[in-house]
Amino acid sequence: MKQGTILSGMRPTGRLHLGHLSVLENWRELMEKYNCYFMVANWHALTTAFDYPKVTVEYTRELVLDWLMVGLDPLKSTIFVQSEVKEHAELHLLLSLITPLSWLERCPTYKDQVQHFREQGRDITTYGFLGYPSLMAADILLYKADVVPVGEDQLPHLEFCREVVRRFHHLYKREVFPEPQAYLPELPLVPGLDGRKMSKSYGNEIPLASNPEEITAKVRMMVTDPERIHATDPGHPDVCTVYAFHRLFSKPVVEDLEKSCKKGEIGCVPCKKRLTSTLIEFLTPYWERRRELERDPDYVWDVLKEGGRRARLKACQTMEEVRAAMGIEIPGQTGSI
Amino acid sequence: MKQGTILSGMRPTGRLHLGHLSVLENWRELMEKYNCYFMVANWHALTTAFDYPKVTVEYTRELVLDWLMVGLDPLKSTIFVQSEVKEHAELHLLLSLITPLSWLERCPTYKDQVQHFREQGRDITTYGFLGYPSLMAADILLYKADVVPVGEDQLPHLEFCREVVRRFHHLYKREVFPEPQAYLPELPLVPGLDGRKMSKSYGNEIPLASNPEEITAKVRMMVTDPERIHATDPGHPDVCTVYAFHRLFSKPVVEDLEKSCKKGEIGCVPCKKRLTSTLIEFLTPYWERRRELERDPDYVWDVLKEGGRRARLKACQTMEEVRAAMGIEIPGQTGSI
Repeated sequence: MKQGTILSGMRPTGRLHLGHLSVLENWRELMEKYNCYFMVANWHALTTAFDYPKVTVEYTRELVLDWLMVGLDPLKSTIFVQSEVKEHAELHLLLSLITPLSWLERCPTYKDQVQHFREQGRDITTYGFLGYPSLMAADILLYKADVVPVGEDQLPHLEFCREVVRRFHHLYKREVFPEPQAYLPELPLVPGLDGRKMSKSYGNEIPLASNPEEITAKVRMMVTDPERIHATDPGHPDVCTVYAFHRLFSKPVVEDLEKSCKKGEIGCVPCKKRLTSTLIEFLTPYWERRRELERDPDYVWDVLKEGGRRARLKACQTMEEVRAAMGIEIPGQTGSI
Repeated sequence: MKQGTILSGMRPTGRLHLGHLSVLENWRELMEKYNCYFMVANWHALTTAFDYPKVTVEYTRELVLDWLMVGLDPLKSTIFVQSEVKEHAELHLLLSLITPLSWLERCPTYKDQVQHFREQGRDITTYGFLGYPSLMAADILLYKADVVPVGEDQLPHLEFCREVVRRFHHLYKREVFPEPQAYLPELPLVPGLDGRKMSKSYGNEIPLASNPEEITAKVRMMVTDPERIHATDPGHPDVCTVYAFHRLFSKPVVEDLEKSCKKGEIGCVPCKKRLTSTLIEFLTPYWERRRELERDPDYVWDVLKEGGRRARLKACQTMEEVRAAMGIEIPGQTGSI
């Protein structure tokens, strides 16, 4: 018996990179203990990408391949696409009827994001974008998730969701939803090639699905200790991106590498070469698995179809309870599973 | 072959009254010429009644019985409940992603209604209430309605819908929807018992589904010419509510009645009695039909089930086109009809 239900998701907006790895490794662990719903949040992706949506299908395929490649198991978890479970839209609509406009307007991310996009010359102040936390609440509540792994920045959205739950229970005098708890896993931060946070928008990322040539090229671009001119100069690992990666991926030898670097016994070129082979060695099983998965072009869609079916089943059950609580059950109608 | 598609609907918020009759008679005619979708707008009802929703199911039954009683034919039109076609929520969500917030904020009815409810001590400034025109646009567009019968006050909402259509076509370079045209039928205005517009909120209404005793009592309450003290005083039909009703329901004899009143030949009491019998005679066939329909407690739900099935079929077709235009079709997924 699993100990609770988790909902988590990612927007299909491009290839995943090493910065996402720790999240996925965490999901892989959670999958063993919890009843996990892993959602491709394609409607969420559209809140900011409504003007170039066509990419989301190809990105959905890439995203799910990345998930499966690192070991998310469709037999142990429910992997599905948000847009294939219409009940997300239905619950979002019903919640929107009881959600004061001001709760959404005061969400800290709303104004930040609007400003961020405005600086890029894009206006995303749509009705749907304002309502994004309500859609997120529907995502969570539809599966009665009691635990939601989130980053610090998502905490206000989860608090919003909890407020909506309390308002629903207050209005309709029936406890339908658990109040979902935030789970803030302590995950190692992967730096980008330039030492900043790894992010596609900085162009400093190493894709998860890659190949030896790309890894070699990427590691070559990594920023090292700028004060180290000659290979025999003593290095300062703490300011070196390569060293940061060794700490994450070369644990057994990282202390030796640190000492050798500080003593000027190992140059940056061989140090990068070691990292290159370590990364390639680490990622190769994933790549092999991905190639295998890609062989059947329908596999991802089959996984999503089965996941969608399971997700709908749960979603429909919840919606029956929601409609009953609100007293809007139309008799004699069949569900549309 | 019918000449176009019409969507129209009513909110299930209580018994219909004589003020609704001309709208329904108009629907009955439209039903012969157009492919008509008649919708019980229960989600719309919740935008302002989210805090006492339980009534909507009973009101749904009453509303559909009233519709059927006056001759709406489920074989000639599609009679359905909004909440049973999830695609309304899905399209509303997708449209919300391309709808600038300002378009909704500037809808004239929004601020009016918020103010109106505030005066009653109720706050309805929810996210869902702000988005009501977007849900209405989804209702219309899902069936590709080209004609929408509206009252004057609904014109801005239809213009909003047309703007959304243009934006959708501009963004996704594919013409999916017709730009729906408003149809403003010239319908006779039925006064309430006190001479003001007939409206439940004024408490001056005559219910459609009624009985002789209630009609007798209601007509007795009608306001007549206040200057007429004695039955033999000459009356002023133009200020008399009873006369206004005779004009609508006693057409063959209305001129004679007008003359007799002006000459003081007919008193208000017999004049009211005549109206009473006219109304009872007019409504009796409806009441008989209603009693017949009520005999099978499942009949209304069966009608709505079949209507829902037909509405979903069309709605799903439209949504396939919408997803194709936006490029968010997930391959290999089955629709959920």
